[in-house]
Amino acid sequence: MQDLKKIVMAGAGNVATHLGLALKDAGCEILQVYSRTQESASLLANKLNCTFTTRAEDLSKGADLYIFSLADHALEEIMQAFPHKDAFVVHTSGSIGLDVMGRHLKNCGVFYPLQTFSRDVSLDFGSVPLCLEASDTLHLESLKNLALSISNNVHFINSQQRETLHIAAVFACNFTNHLYAIADEILEKEGVDFDILHPLLEETLRKAKQNKPADVQTGPAARNDLPVIQKHLQRLSSLPAYQKIYNFISQSITESKKKKS
Amino acid sequence: MQDLKKIVMAGAGNVATHLGLALKDAGCEILQVYSRTQESASLLANKLNCTFTTRAEDLSKGADLYIFSLADHALEEIMQAFPHKDAFVVHTSGSIGLDVMGRHLKNCGVFYPLQTFSRDVSLDFGSVPLCLEASDTLHLESLKNLALSISNNVHFINSQQRETLHIAAVFACNFTNHLYAIADEILEKEGVDFDILHPLLEETLRKAKQNKPADVQTGPAARNDLPVIQKHLQRLSSLPAYQKIYNFISQSITESKKKKS
Repeated sequence: MQDLKKIVMAGAGNVATHLGLALKDAGCEILQVYSRTQESASLLANKLNCTFTTRAEDLSKGADLYIFSLADHALEEIMQAFPHKDAFVVHTSGSIGLDVMGRHLKNCGVFYPLQTFSRDVSLDFGSVPLCLEASDTLHLESLKNLALSISNNVHFINSQQRETLHIAAVFACNFTNHLYAIADEILEKEGVDFDILHPLLEETLRKAKQNKPADVQTGPAARNDLPVIQKHLQRLSSLPAYQKIYNFISQSITESKKKKS
Repeated sequence: MQDLKKIVMAGAGNVATHLGLALKDAGCEILQVYSRTQESASLLANKLNCTFTTRAEDLSKGADLYIFSLADHALEEIMQAFPHKDAFVVHTSGSIGLDVMGRHLKNCGVFYPLQTFSRDVSLDFGSVPLCLEASDTLHLESLKNLALSISNNVHFINSQQRETLHIAAVFACNFTNHLYAIADEILEKEGVDFDILHPLLEETLRKAKQNKPADVQTGPAARNDLPVIQKHLQRLSSLPAYQKIYNFISQSITESKKKKS
């Protein structure tokens, strides 16, 4: 098992930024930042107090760990261009299997933070679930030690589970936020502040955490209240995309209730 | 303005139960509970330490306020059968306009708690938004006083705003919970516990409360990452209802991003 202290960050987006800062705070030395554009590379390098490059070929050698935190389509490219084929490399993607890295690199792994990061929104990294996978147990143990230095929420998750986690996160986080945005938009037109929904949103989440979400489903679709559903669909007729979402989710809720009963 | 102290609850569902208990705790005297079935009527009457009836014709006279907390389709029926046409009556529905009550009753109003109630899940009523409307300002003031005795979150909301609020709540609460349930279901199949998503769900809500939700949208659809979206849709092919929801919400997110940029 190796102590992973010297780290190179390839990527300068939301995940790379939050992860790089957390690692630096935990005492790691960030050697270098890579990003395709000089602007984003230098911005993160400044925050991490290190050098930067915009050419994958110029990635420093000698780091204990290379973290590739890039969009999925850019990952394959950088793995080909990456000059240090024996180095230990992880990616941070929810949807790329470990086997994809294995084609290019001998010592590889995954370091997937299951969280939503916005560049300018600070967050406490200490409770972010870190989902780890590696090409062998020694590297997995090294990753685990590193992960525990920045979070108390560390999991071993294989590639198939991670892909499912990613899909689940899209439903429960990304899509949920879009539903909030829809609510905000239709309330704004009526002169009502979105804040009035805050207690409801908090309670919805609290109940879903303390129970099985399907067991605490409420609302018109859950009680198959067709007159209310029809009324709402009619009110949404000027917003066809939202009307379609209302319709399909309502149907899905009603179906789920039928299956349960 | 009248002090509303003696109250009759028509209805014994989730809203009636939580509201009745909160009013009793605040010092109101609940005179009677009405429900169509003896079982639910007696259950709530026991909790509120009062009598009950299963016949609308037998609703006690002399209460300061009658709260009709029934399914929408049952409201019109009880308003017809209700014998005390001069009494002050409110309903607790998000989707029935004040004008519907006005056809049957002179002194009427709305007392709409914007919250999700599950019968066996206790909650702090003190922060539940109460949306009020009444046939005249005197009754509205009386309602406001009553509302402030159980919550610090009281709003005057007209019928059209309330209907929009109800639709917004369906999106942001009921539909959000269904997305949680979908996430739970697909994770369970993979042997992963839903709990691993909790920090992500908390952060999603925290960000949406502190920002405009549309401004903090993340995920594959927000960055128009078609390969990931295609991969997810393919993985969902055995769950066509969820695949359809994935597809339409993703399209809606991408459309919203286009409109913003």
